[in-house]
Amino acid sequence: MLDRCPHRFAPLSDGWIEDGRLICRYHGLGFDGAGVCVSNPHGPPLRGMSIPAWAIHEVHHAIWIWFGDPGQADPELIPDLSYLTAAPATAFSAGMLTGKGNYELFVDNLMDLSHTDYLHPATLGGGAVTKVKPDVVEADDHIEVTWRADDTPPSPLLRKLFPELPAQTDFWQRVRWFAPGVMKLTAATGAAGGAEEQALVNVNAHITTPETATSSHYFFAATRNFKVDDGELNAMIAQKREEIFVTEDKPMLARVQERMGDAEFWSLKPRMLPIDAAPVAVRRRMRKLIEAEAALRSSPRAEVA
Amino acid sequence: MLDRCPHRFAPLSDGWIEDGRLICRYHGLGFDGAGVCVSNPHGPPLRGMSIPAWAIHEVHHAIWIWFGDPGQADPELIPDLSYLTAAPATAFSAGMLTGKGNYELFVDNLMDLSHTDYLHPATLGGGAVTKVKPDVVEADDHIEVTWRADDTPPSPLLRKLFPELPAQTDFWQRVRWFAPGVMKLTAATGAAGGAEEQALVNVNAHITTPETATSSHYFFAATRNFKVDDGELNAMIAQKREEIFVTEDKPMLARVQERMGDAEFWSLKPRMLPIDAAPVAVRRRMRKLIEAEAALRSSPRAEVA
Amino acid sequence: MLDRCPHRFAPLSDGWIEDGRLICRYHGLGFDGAGVCVSNPHGPPLRGMSIPAWAIHEVHHAIWIWFGDPGQADPELIPDLSYLTAAPATAFSAGMLTGKGNYELFVDNLMDLSHTDYLHPATLGGGAVTKVKPDVVEADDHIEVTWRADDTPPSPLLRKLFPELPAQTDFWQRVRWFAPGVMKLTAATGAAGGAEEQALVNVNAHITTPETATSSHYFFAATRNFKVDDGELNAMIAQKREEIFVTEDKPMLARVQERMGDAEFWSLKPRMLPIDAAPVAVRRRMRKLIEAEAALRSSPRAEVA
Repeated sequence: MLDRCPHRFAPLSDGWIEDGRLICRYHGLGFDGAGVCVSNPHGPPLRGMSIPAWAIHEVHHAIWIWFGDPGQADPELIPDLSYLTAAPATAFSAGMLTGKGNYELFVDNLMDLSHTDYLHPATLGGGAVTKVKPDVVEADDHIEVTWRADDTPPSPLLRKLFPELPAQTDFWQRVRWFAPGVMKLTAATGAAGGAEEQALVNVNAHITTPETATSSHYFFAATRNFKVDDGELNAMIAQKREEIFVTEDKPMLARVQERMGDAEFWSLKPRMLPIDAAPVAVRRRMRKLIEAEAALRSSPRAEVA
Repeated sequence: MLDRCPHRFAPLSDGWIEDGRLICRYHGLGFDGAGVCVSNPHGPPLRGMSIPAWAIHEVHHAIWIWFGDPGQADPELIPDLSYLTAAPATAFSAGMLTGKGNYELFVDNLMDLSHTDYLHPATLGGGAVTKVKPDVVEADDHIEVTWRADDTPPSPLLRKLFPELPAQTDFWQRVRWFAPGVMKLTAATGAAGGAEEQALVNVNAHITTPETATSSHYFFAATRNFKVDDGELNAMIAQKREEIFVTEDKPMLARVQERMGDAEFWSLKPRMLPIDAAPVAVRRRMRKLIEAEAALRSSPRAEVA
Repeated sequence: MLDRCPHRFAPLSDGWIEDGRLICRYHGLGFDGAGVCVSNPHGPPLRGMSIPAWAIHEVHHAIWIWFGDPGQADPELIPDLSYLTAAPATAFSAGMLTGKGNYELFVDNLMDLSHTDYLHPATLGGGAVTKVKPDVVEADDHIEVTWRADDTPPSPLLRKLFPELPAQTDFWQRVRWFAPGVMKLTAATGAAGGAEEQALVNVNAHITTPETATSSHYFFAATRNFKVDDGELNAMIAQKREEIFVTEDKPMLARVQERMGDAEFWSLKPRMLPIDAAPVAVRRRMRKLIEAEAALRSSPRAEVA
């Protein structure tokens, strides 16, 4: 629901639930789940008094909102993140941060993992991604980028966590993006030339949504296929990921946004490189989706929330 | 006076008084009470060098400013708050806060006390106001709203301070507003059906002035007719009022303003209820006064400060 | 160089130097001293990929930037501050501050030292400057103002540092301004009627550059001709200067800017006094220089960085 009472604009999120109604803390008006004012302690509720309410669906440890016509909300459109709920507690961690930077900068950061070699050289980067070219595949409902490097040393972080790893490994990383900002990241490292089933695999989710035009919410969750009962390792991975993001990605994205000011990305004429193939494909797809939605909203039958 | 030296815009409030002149701390220019520069240590004062100065009048523990032509300032127009100076020190307390929210939101908050039952349920609210309808009276120089509830339990705060109070009481609350933001609030609680002279009565002043378009100064003072020699009770009442305002009203008004952004109140189409009779009457009166002043200022004879 | 990578707008100042190239920390692009991208670890550098780079010159303990065509940068135009490098370490101190206030307010503050008698009465001011008129001389490459007061008590600070000073002294202060914000301040105090060579002389540099339209960088450095081996005195002078600026000048300039808001200085119709002769001359000179530069930039052959 819109977090604003139609009476005097009080935040309904400050209220409480009573008999299935959300009660406003300022003057006591009550609202049902469709946003309709159904009770007024000072007299009869006004006719037609309501606030916009949207369809939500809770699945995969997340709450999904449909900002269009609630009747058209289709849970089948939610990307499959069932690996998150399938993971045991000792092989699952999740978190959330807010950072400066338009949400598309957060998506770019994941769709071009070549940055790990420069921004995270002591942990995630090891030079492997820089050696190879990204392979981009576009599908109707997603865009996927894969970086595959054979016969390469494991990342510094993996080397530290698993000293027993061979000196040379086969490594691949894949990010599958779903509009507008849901990404499934799979990273695998195995003995060079070894069987793929024996690789150490992390499957993570990265979700970003706009907070403002120049700041974003960033949700993330991690699972893995190795040592799934090791709670200590689990906590260490979660702590390390938080540290990397807070001290390296977050300040970088904030400073990029600072340098962009309020300007639109393309208006500043960035010079795109082949490593930007996936981010550029995603930005183009998003433009199309946004234009299609704008056309829909301006058509006679459109309902604007 | 305008707090800005006409020479180089230094804050005159940083200066000091010397021989009846206000001396600027930056270069030593001196100003008389009418804002005229009457001394310059570096040479003769410039002809016609002055700053706007307004008429002020000190009464009722407050300083009142007249922003119009000083010659037309009339102290008789100041609302009578003589009950504040008449109260003994042990039955008087006062304070001042600055909060987010246009001053009209602060006035609304007092002109519609039905909010006390929802925003202050553990102290001032007890459900009494919600049971009744406000009675609004408009006069030339004020607008007054009265809430009267007979045979109702005392408020939780009063019950705590006076456990000896009967279970059922007669209660009334009255707020008299004077333009632009001076309010006298009288609240009385007595035994149900008892003599009105025996009621416990608080007489408070609430004054709000704009700081910016979206923040306000809020001055308040309290007196009472009971236990007027009890300094401890006096301190407890002052502390409680501060706590209620800081933890309940102030954050609510700030969040309402947040939700309004920079939009004008009516442009957001609030749905007014019968409990808003007094706030709406006050807002209408203010519009008329503001329009009248604007007309005056744009007339040929007007002097703009 | 512009601190913004042409690829994805990362801050190049976060990078590192490697083999004479500045490496971007986000994706590893390398730039030479002319701002040209000369290396790309992911493939060949893009043709014509570069960022604006300006000519710099390091001299007099400072780095000087030429924001015009690098080929026209002429180190001979740098004002002579060689007295700074000539001073022994025990007679030299320097510092830097950032403060609210357009850089022209910082220049005004130095070009009109009559403020010392009012803003710094306990230290630098002693009434001497107020007694006299400023003498302003305009030259092609500078504007200079001199305040000379004979037979006057030394400043309170000097009196405290040198109790042996005679009660009456000859005092002069001179500020030579070079565009846009470089000032050499010489202050001398000697026995009244005594030989000028025996005076205590401080020679300081004050440099201000814009940070934003309403805030400035303020660099300063001090040397002296007396007790040049006294490191303790040197530290005390540095500490005192910092204290005076932070507690007196900086808040005054900030509040002046506050009162000016975003308005242009002259648009607020300041009333200038004879003490403003030098600041006004400097502001006029700056207008001419800015207009000349704007004309140059709008001419067909101009190159805008």
